This record gives sequence, C-alpha cells and structure tokens, in this order.
Amino acid sequence: MSRPRFISFNRNGSLGYGLLLESGVVDLSGRHGKRWPTLRQVIEDGALLSLAEASAALAPDFPVEDIRYEIPVPAPEKIICVGVNFPDRNEEYKDGQAAPSNPSLFIRFPRSFTGHEQALLRPPESPQLDYEGEIVIVIGKGGRRIAKAEALGHIAALSLCNEGTIRDWVRHAKFNVTQGKNFDATGSMGPWLIPYTDESQLADIKLETRVNGEVRQQDRTSRMIFSFRKIINYISTFTTLVPGDVIVTGTPTGAGARFDPPIWLKPGDVVEVEAEGIGVLRNTVADA
Amino acid sequence: MSRPRFISFNRNGSLGYGLLLESGVVDLSGRHGKRWPTLRQVIEDGALLSLAEASAALAPDFPVEDIRYEIPVPAPEKIICVGVNFPDRNEEYKDGQAAPSNPSLFIRFPRSFTGHEQALLRPPESPQLDYEGEIVIVIGKGGRRIAKAEALGHIAALSLCNEGTIRDWVRHAKFNVTQGKNFDATGSMGPWLIPYTDESQLADIKLETRVNGEVRQQDRTSRMIFSFRKIINYISTFTTLVPGDVIVTGTPTGAGARFDPPIWLKPGDVVEVEAEGIGVLRNTVADA
Repeated sequence: MSRPRFISFNRNGSLGYGLLLESGVVDLSGRHGKRWPTLRQVIEDGALLSLAEASAALAPDFPVEDIRYEIPVPAPEKIICVGVNFPDRNEEYKDGQAAPSNPSLFIRFPRSFTGHEQALLRPPESPQLDYEGEIVIVIGKGGRRIAKAEALGHIAALSLCNEGTIRDWVRHAKFNVTQGKNFDATGSMGPWLIPYTDESQLADIKLETRVNGEVRQQDRTSRMIFSFRKIINYISTFTTLVPGDVIVTGTPTGAGARFDPPIWLKPGDVVEVEAEGIGVLRNTVADA
Repeated sequence: MSRPRFISFNRNGSLGYGLLLESGVVDLSGRHGKRWPTLRQVIEDGALLSLAEASAALAPDFPVEDIRYEIPVPAPEKIICVGVNFPDRNEEYKDGQAAPSNPSLFIRFPRSFTGHEQALLRPPESPQLDYEGEIVIVIGKGGRRIAKAEALGHIAALSLCNEGTIRDWVRHAKFNVTQGKNFDATGSMGPWLIPYTDESQLADIKLETRVNGEVRQQDRTSRMIFSFRKIINYISTFTTLVPGDVIVTGTPTGAGARFDPPIWLKPGDVVEVEAEGIGVLRNTVADA
C-alpha cells in the first residue's frame, strides 16, 4: 500500500488541504477545516494517520489540475535550516577548518518558499540563483531538550525542500547568510507530507537533485554529518520545538556554486529534488 | 501631551492588549478583540493612532499590577535583527576587516523574548548570558524594494529590545549566530509600542543600557552605521515586509562580552534599556 500524501493547496484563490490520489484530490479542508484550519493543526492533534485512515474510502473531489500546490505547512512557527551536513561540503569551504562539532543553523521565512510545480523566482538583484536539495522533517510532538533516543518520536511527517539560494547575497554582510536565503520564492517545499512512522523512512535513503534531467547532487542520509536525532536534540536545547515546526536538514555536495565556473539557474530550467519514499519536488525557474 | 503607550499583556491567563495610563490599563482587547485579535491586526489596519484618540477619554479598567507584560506584537511574521550597527562595534571583532557595506542580519523567534518586568532566563547550558540594548521599529505599511526616501513612512511604532544573547553559543558552529540568539526567554521586548509619527522620534535619540544602575552602553541613533532608512530599504530588497514585522536595529558598544574579563549577567541582576521618547525596558535575571 502506498503511503498517504497530504498536500496544502490553493484552489480558486482559497487555501485548503487534502489527500493526493492518482485520480485527483480528496478535499479534507472542506470536511474538517473548522476543526483543523490547516495541516499544522492536524499535526498538533497528532491526527495525520487517523485522518488518512478515515478518508481512505473517499473518492477525489476535484482533479489535480484544479489546484496550485502550496508549501505543506503554510505558516509554521519556525523553519530552521541546517548548513554543511554532508561529506565534502565542509571541504568545499576551503578554509582549512576541521568538520564542525555542532550544526550551523539559519532561519528562512515561509515566503522564501513556493510550492511544488511553481516557478522559483530569480530576482533582478543577482543572477546567482542556486539549488540545494534537502530532506524536511516536520515536528509532531513538541519539546525542549529532547534526548537523542527519543528524538525520532517527535517527527510527524517528511517532505522535501529545494533550499534555493542567492549565492552572492549569502556573504553580502560581515556575518550570517540570512539575506541570501530569504529572497521571496527562491526556494520550494513539498510536494506533500508523508506521515512518519518508522526509522527506515529516514535511516539510509537516497537524496538526489537534477537540473534539466542531469544529476547534480546525490548522496544518502546515512552519510549525514549530523543525524536526524542529533539535529532535533541540538535545536531543542535552545528553543522549544512545537508541532508544525519545519527542519530542513542539509544538502549534499554539488550545488551550482561548486562548478568552475559556477552554473547558476536560469529561466526555463527545471529542478527536481527526489528522495526515496518521499517523492519528487519539481520546479521551474523564472525571472521575478 | 504624552504619547499613547500600547501594551500587550497576559491577565489571568488570557492575552490582551490596551493602553497604559499612569492610573492603570485601558482594556482595548475587551472592546475591540473581535475586530483586532492582537495589536498586529490594529497595525495592519493602520489604526493605532485613531484607536488611541478614540480611547482617550476612557478610564482604566484595572491596575497595572493585574497584568504581566507580553512582547508588544505577540506573533509577528518576522523578527529581523541587525548586527554590528554602531561605531566601535566593528572594531570589537578585531578581524582587521573594514566596516561592512551591508548590515549583517539574523532572525529571532518570538519565544526567545519575554516581556517587560519578566525575568531573562539563564539556561543551564551556559553562564554567558549577555545584554544588548536596541531600538525596535515595527512595520505598519508592508512593501518590497522600499526606497530610502519612503522608508520611514512604513514604520507604525517604536519599542525597545534587550537582545539578550548566549555569547558562546553564537559561535557554536561554523556559521551563523542562530542558536546563541534563540534560547527561550533570553531577551526581552517592550515595554510598549509608541506610535511613530515623526522622524524626530528616531533621528538623534539616546539609547542606554544599565545593569544594576551602572551605565554599560550609551550611544545616539544619529551615529548608527546603517540608518533606519537603509535598514528598511535593504531588508525589503529580498523579503516582502508586512504589517507587524519587527526590526531590531543594533546595539552600541559595551556588552558584557567586551569587558576583560567578560561580565555576564547573573541571577538577581536588573537590566534596563532606555531610549528617549520611548521608555525604559526593565528585566531581572533568573536561572531557567
């Protein structure tokens, strides 16, 4: 049996959520929107799996052509991104520093992402739009100072991210990557949420990024420098995680910036981020 | 006539907002909470000044002792902080780099702040809790790529921030200050919002931080490296600003980390951040 795929969408200008079937979209927000306005509230209630089961016999309400994909959790309290988390990525910085003992973290705002099948926007300020394929974990059970042994039990769902970056703006100032990571709609998230039930969904899966069909990034989660357990443990040391919080867990080597000369994304390109058991997040590129 | 002071508060476990008078609190959420659930919605409607005027004749509904101060905009879409924005602050880093041409920016989550008169929490992970007194601007009119000439017209209100920091966690990883800036309740914001109407409220005001009455930081906004106009212009280049967005505009030299040896905050300390025309933000320190 295939796993349920929860999507957030815009249909005729209204935000909703539902289940994506081969034959179309089951509209859950129409049925449950009063109780759970968005998937964030479904997650808060720990209801993803029971909702999928209760909806298993429903027929689609409309075809997928009727919707525009939105990022799966439309307004999470936090989107926290991990930098430098795959082998060779630390070496790429050529600063002679040993691999770090703690993950670098930065924050992105929801509006820096667009949904599946939407265009990543290249702003007029820079031609250096770059891709970074990453796996997303969505927190189900909140907490502070979560032990590594308990960490995976705090995950509600999995998704994907193209953590699109304006590369020269990452080092536009003395410190911090904030501005290069937060141009509106330069990244994407989705296409959907896959409920998390078992460590095998994360332990050793392939993560791949393709540009116009050409493989640019490819690695396996078993090679991550900081494990999913460590990431949850470390982040929850300083901040209280709450249901719906999104953690973007780092990208393999091979972004466009690492080519000589660099290869930036340009209008018309198609970028795909794929991970085993989660899906394929696909976006085009357009000028803003 | 004194300027209206809008506060957000917790009273008997419920969040509300109102006007602070010498004689007590005028409860505005009780009167207008359906239309405007929080001050963020009042700001979105551009209604701060008209609401203050319409409420000018009201008597206090309860004494200030009945409330606990909350941060003025409880759940802004963004809290963006500017690093290294006063003279001598760049030199403090002793890295031989010239003053930067663009502001360093980082993000804090609302839960990293507590309200006026509440305790800043020193976490068990580090004794290096440090203060940073700063002026806060709250966006009233949203926009993208806002011209410097228009920038101040996008400000709805002013407030203060103690941008409390766990100093060793600022450089805990290879890049970015995220974790050292986001321990729960290590900073504070408030005490209130003062509606912004005139450039003289910001152009050359004194900003001072005191610890147990001793002046530790003191400078004037006229000496900022990046002006309020530049900050709004620069941030809105990459992200769309929306009403209620909070920008924390940088701290003068003199944080505890700059003393030799450093002087960290400890339980029982009282920290005050004061700016002319805005007020005094006061917090104690306690162990978490």
